[in-house]
Amino acid sequence: MAEKKALITLTTDFGEADYFVAAMKGVIYSINPEAEIVDLTHSIPPHDIYAAAFTLMCCYADFPTNTIHLVVVDPGVGSARRPIMVMTDNYRFIGPDNGVFSYIYQRPDVNRIVHLTTEHYFRQPVSSTFHGRDIFAPCAAYASKLVDWRMMGVGISDSVRFNIPAPVVLSEQQIRGTVLHVDRFGNLITNITPSELTEERIRAGARVRIGKHENLRVLTHFAEANQNELFAYFGSAGLLELAVPRQSAARIAEARRGVEVEVVVPT
Amino acid sequence: MAEKKALITLTTDFGEADYFVAAMKGVIYSINPEAEIVDLTHSIPPHDIYAAAFTLMCCYADFPTNTIHLVVVDPGVGSARRPIMVMTDNYRFIGPDNGVFSYIYQRPDVNRIVHLTTEHYFRQPVSSTFHGRDIFAPCAAYASKLVDWRMMGVGISDSVRFNIPAPVVLSEQQIRGTVLHVDRFGNLITNITPSELTEERIRAGARVRIGKHENLRVLTHFAEANQNELFAYFGSAGLLELAVPRQSAARIAEARRGVEVEVVVPT
Amino acid sequence: MAEKKALITLTTDFGEADYFVAAMKGVIYSINPEAEIVDLTHSIPPHDIYAAAFTLMCCYADFPTNTIHLVVVDPGVGSARRPIMVMTDNYRFIGPDNGVFSYIYQRPDVNRIVHLTTEHYFRQPVSSTFHGRDIFAPCAAYASKLVDWRMMGVGISDSVRFNIPAPVVLSEQQIRGTVLHVDRFGNLITNITPSELTEERIRAGARVRIGKHENLRVLTHFAEANQNELFAYFGSAGLLELAVPRQSAARIAEARRGVEVEVVVPT
Repeated sequence: MAEKKALITLTTDFGEADYFVAAMKGVIYSINPEAEIVDLTHSIPPHDIYAAAFTLMCCYADFPTNTIHLVVVDPGVGSARRPIMVMTDNYRFIGPDNGVFSYIYQRPDVNRIVHLTTEHYFRQPVSSTFHGRDIFAPCAAYASKLVDWRMMGVGISDSVRFNIPAPVVLSEQQIRGTVLHVDRFGNLITNITPSELTEERIRAGARVRIGKHENLRVLTHFAEANQNELFAYFGSAGLLELAVPRQSAARIAEARRGVEVEVVVPT
Repeated sequence: MAEKKALITLTTDFGEADYFVAAMKGVIYSINPEAEIVDLTHSIPPHDIYAAAFTLMCCYADFPTNTIHLVVVDPGVGSARRPIMVMTDNYRFIGPDNGVFSYIYQRPDVNRIVHLTTEHYFRQPVSSTFHGRDIFAPCAAYASKLVDWRMMGVGISDSVRFNIPAPVVLSEQQIRGTVLHVDRFGNLITNITPSELTEERIRAGARVRIGKHENLRVLTHFAEANQNELFAYFGSAGLLELAVPRQSAARIAEARRGVEVEVVVPT
Repeated sequence: MAEKKALITLTTDFGEADYFVAAMKGVIYSINPEAEIVDLTHSIPPHDIYAAAFTLMCCYADFPTNTIHLVVVDPGVGSARRPIMVMTDNYRFIGPDNGVFSYIYQRPDVNRIVHLTTEHYFRQPVSSTFHGRDIFAPCAAYASKLVDWRMMGVGISDSVRFNIPAPVVLSEQQIRGTVLHVDRFGNLITNITPSELTEERIRAGARVRIGKHENLRVLTHFAEANQNELFAYFGSAGLLELAVPRQSAARIAEARRGVEVEVVVPT
């Protein structure tokens, strides 16, 4: 049996055209040659911590236990925002304390949040513009070598988190939700799960409203939708999504993150 | 000596901006931590099984023996199309049964095509929109752990394949071929090989015609072409290609996949 | 302790949509299954050896000792330009002899430049259009297996290098520099380092001029800049950069690679 790999995933808004991602990987391999690095994505829209938080939430748990998820979407680089490590039962998350781990904080198994303060684990000199290379990558590499968190910083309890709207079941006839994310195809991903919009409510003829578009069908497959039809379905993230076949639902519904969505169940 | 790596390549139309590719990788590493994953490409045009089939054909054999090639270009996801594994002497191919392995079927060493039916090897629950994560990735991971194919499904002989036009030598003076693929630079890649357009025929002054563009030269290097010249050459896939220096041959010749190409050899 | 990995980085202008990068990786893994391949970037602008040289320079030294850096930006493929390997104390660089290693040649620890001539280490047959797959990738793979350079080719001393302008301190009041690179955000990266534009000169009120834009401030952080302000700062490469918040400095300053930049220090 081979030993377990030290997996580190990378999520950034750096794109893949510059040397930024490569520099981070070089730093990680220099510190821990045994690390295995997986690109989660480098195409987060610039500075969009909401998109980074959502993207991470959708797939972090598909990775093996002990994976370290490193997120560098960091509009506050160079300011006083703290570098942090969030520790759960199965994973560690390293990145700036700007809310990018807000979805993670909702999980019951968050054990500890560490402000990474030990400069010994930073690349020197620390630049004012590239903490991905100088702070986050080396800290992830040392964490993957099982350096104890007490060596790396101090526990905190006031980390930054943004508000994540919860879906509300107003009555048997009405569910109110919110668009959490717009993907690159323009699909609108809401916070409504099968716990609110149950099989039973779907069978009862539940319809969806967004803005002035109402009476939208809840389908099982894309293939059931008509041309130009704005419809709803449960996507691969387990959330209700609004889509239009081969078109942008965001454009057609004139909707964006934060917009309200309503489900109406006939009596 | 280290043991042999379990290489798995990924070819999808998912792009790299979303969490889809990362989720597949997480699933694979969770099942087989020893797997080594190589991105073949995630930029197949959406739903273009022809482009995926062609791209795979051009490089699958450059990988080491026992590599598993996983292809998820799957417009029929959620429908009745079957998940399959194609087994040749040296490689296994996993993906939807939609024709994406048509070029592979032309090889003499295809030993077996398996309909992957054993839900034990699927990620549960299986979503209706993301079989890449829920069926194909886990099956590839288990296959890389040398699970016997008989455990994973049943042999079939009626897999879907699309027609791949063969070049025809009509006479010593005439070869008829077809455009198989248009690459992102607009180069037109045909099905004509050096077996049809031999060195001898080139030396005899063979010229190429596509649409109303005729008398095109067959060159050895890009560098020999004149500015704005539509010309032919044997590309790195071993196939005759039509190109224009720094321009799109597809646009200039108003050609696309399936268009006829003719080679004329002077008497 | 695990053995040291054989790291190979890839820098190309191939993009990620075609099979080119995958073919190179397949060739490398076929020759050395123990290799670990890291994408530096595949988004170098087509044929831009200057951009490739600059990108490599910014991060090659972040990689572990013994990493092999493979660069295939090769407008002269198929011509007489030589395939070479540059050997320094800590790294080897493999690619075409077209100037792409010009920054490396400035380092004091370049020990040897090898013209790779031994066809035994090439993939056969060698195509005229894809030496990345047929020459560079296999040579990198063999080099990573510690094949002695004397087996692979012959030492040369006349490799191609392009001129890299040096910053000039004309007087205590004036530094003259040059734009080395324009990144994809339009930031203008110059050759001026903290050795020329010292802390002392910044404190003395140094201002920057490019074209008709003068009196530009030297800031520490992006966050200090005003909206629409063209300003200067030391970027993560350790070089003075010109930027405009969320806009293209290249467009606003109508500047490109090679343009002169001047620093003026008040008396």
